Amino acid sequence: MEKFIAFNPVKLHFGKNAAENIGSAVKKVTDNALLVYGRKSIKENGIYDFVAGKLREAGVRFTEYHGIKANPVVDDVEKAIILARESNCGAVIAVGGGSVLDSAKIIALCAKGNHDPWKVMKYEQKPDSALPLFTVLTFAGTGSEMNQFAVLQNQITGEKIGYGNNLIFPRESFLDPSYTMSVPANQTAFGVVDLIAHSLEAYFGEGEAHLTDRFICSIIKEAIETAPLLMNNLNSYELRERIMWAATCALNGITLTGRKSGDWGVHDIGHTLSYLYDTPHGATLSIAYPAWMKHMKSKLEDRIGFLGFEVFGVSNANETIAKFERFFSLIGSPVRLSEAGILQKNQDEIFTLMKKNKISGYFHKLFEDDYLKIIELMK
Amino acid sequence: MEKFIAFNPVKLHFGKNAAENIGSAVKKVTDNALLVYGRKSIKENGIYDFVAGKLREAGVRFTEYHGIKANPVVDDVEKAIILARESNCGAVIAVGGGSVLDSAKIIALCAKGNHDPWKVMKYEQKPDSALPLFTVLTFAGTGSEMNQFAVLQNQITGEKIGYGNNLIFPRESFLDPSYTMSVPANQTAFGVVDLIAHSLEAYFGEGEAHLTDRFICSIIKEAIETAPLLMNNLNSYELRERIMWAATCALNGITLTGRKSGDWGVHDIGHTLSYLYDTPHGATLSIAYPAWMKHMKSKLEDRIGFLGFEVFGVSNANETIAKFERFFSLIGSPVRLSEAGILQKNQDEIFTLMKKNKISGYFHKLFEDDYLKIIELMK
Repeated sequence: MEKFIAFNPVKLHFGKNAAENIGSAVKKVTDNALLVYGRKSIKENGIYDFVAGKLREAGVRFTEYHGIKANPVVDDVEKAIILARESNCGAVIAVGGGSVLDSAKIIALCAKGNHDPWKVMKYEQKPDSALPLFTVLTFAGTGSEMNQFAVLQNQITGEKIGYGNNLIFPRESFLDPSYTMSVPANQTAFGVVDLIAHSLEAYFGEGEAHLTDRFICSIIKEAIETAPLLMNNLNSYELRERIMWAATCALNGITLTGRKSGDWGVHDIGHTLSYLYDTPHGATLSIAYPAWMKHMKSKLEDRIGFLGFEVFGVSNANETIAKFERFFSLIGSPVRLSEAGILQKNQDEIFTLMKKNKISGYFHKLFEDDYLKIIELMK
Repeated sequence: MEKFIAFNPVKLHFGKNAAENIGSAVKKVTDNALLVYGRKSIKENGIYDFVAGKLREAGVRFTEYHGIKANPVVDDVEKAIILARESNCGAVIAVGGGSVLDSAKIIALCAKGNHDPWKVMKYEQKPDSALPLFTVLTFAGTGSEMNQFAVLQNQITGEKIGYGNNLIFPRESFLDPSYTMSVPANQTAFGVVDLIAHSLEAYFGEGEAHLTDRFICSIIKEAIETAPLLMNNLNSYELRERIMWAATCALNGITLTGRKSGDWGVHDIGHTLSYLYDTPHGATLSIAYPAWMKHMKSKLEDRIGFLGFEVFGVSNANETIAKFERFFSLIGSPVRLSEAGILQKNQDEIFTLMKKNKISGYFHKLFEDDYLKIIELMK
């Protein structure tokens, strides 16, 4: 094992009506908050009214910033920071999925000292404090609710990048699985792919960590056992609950202990596709992961084989990869570019952007020759 | 799943030389600490000198309380509280195993407001703050380094009881597996039994929590695969490391999410034996758990069977229990009272103390008739 620090201060409330105490939780730190959310869905399904009601009951007034996009952009974050500063907000409340939570993390980090969010994301500015962040999760997959990471894209520079900082751990997160009941089938599947991909990025990181491997395989097995049942029964609270908790565990730290880092090369490939075609994050990952594993097979034969044995009970790398592909297809997530509507003629621009952004994993380095082969395998 | 709050604010440093930053960590909160430890071993193996040196380097002075017993008593805690108050200490540093850490938790909790430790343990007094606690672990098994629990015994009232409070989470814990290298074979085995028993108490708690079950089985498998290798190679850093991290995970919260609570009935039986015969904690558990499972077998046939399948690949409850017994014996931990030197004639006093203390699990309730049968099965 590598030396590590295990640290996760998030207070996470999980279960039916988990959000009922959000008002009193926020009130402990401020009576004036910025409420961040996406499009209209939380107004349609009653979540907005519930949260707003609890805030008002507790005497917390709030300014709203809404319109965060599914692939969140730094432009929105900049505007929200201005709003938070003008309104003198003492906390940020995010209600939504990963895009809203990630945006809110950077808003909370930059609003206090009036930092430039993209410079912060590039580690060119280093804030030394952040506004307290509270999250109400409406989508299972991101893991953002219990970690210190955020991903944003910048339409001007052509980048979609990840960022980590202990200051952006949410103070408290509220997870009510019933808030995910109205998530449609395709989005539900993309969330499942995302949580599996988070687990795999950790699994393929650098270093030997046996118990961590077991935890990772546990999470993937839980998802693979539960998701097909859920796809056939989207109204099952019990199945929504299992996926929601698995998604949190896939990126709350327990899959990363004892390794230098995860790999994250496949996520970077996925970000390239999302940036170019606005392809949903999970959909990019079900395309990129099988291709990446095929490309890495000779180098990672044993590692992929062990994973297959633990998760599927199969005995080699080829079968493992085939099982993942079949699973992704079964739940309705694409496994080829064409299935996501990305055409043969787009190949060049994918390659060009990968080159420009020097796409690579932290551990398994990728170069131009790898890009070409992986793109070929995604076709 | 049951509603739950996942919360664990401990900052845990793990790996070789993990304790090198203890001085600067403590210095952030105080320059005057109480250093608590057990007998002489940390002076013999150099851990005392290392920690004391780091504290001095950082400009932290300290008062010492030593002599905490292997089965820790409230009497020591009372004396240490007086010392901490007289010395006006701003933090408590525990260097040792579970007994030292548990004692230090109650010292830190009671010293600030001058509370009575036994009244606190019985929830008759409720402190609203505690001194910050730092721990340096020298023994794998307890889990105390990353949780909010403590166990103490009271020689006057004849009780050994557990206590939980978020105020007693250590602020930072330092785990260097090389500090456990000098732990002798029998104590090493008892630590392994303890971590397995913690996992089992969680497993047999109330409620259905699938992913939590997988995590629990992962920890038990890790211990069962690693411990026999370690017993044959006590100087292996890598194996010490695996057991140490498994022990932390067995009681840091991830085995408890989604259940109302663990059961803890077997721990209470074990505490009875420790109290009466000063039997090491782990040794009491390798005796009590197989007996408890045999007694519960008809009620928990499927549950014990699933555990056996996941951990040992066997298919029923009888085989599962036999596997656990064989494993405990293999690593040298007793599975019968007689093997721990507890005689037939002692049976009555065990029964009497169990009755007096109303020994029971939280979920699987135990009554007098159960006591008799379990004692019979421990013989």
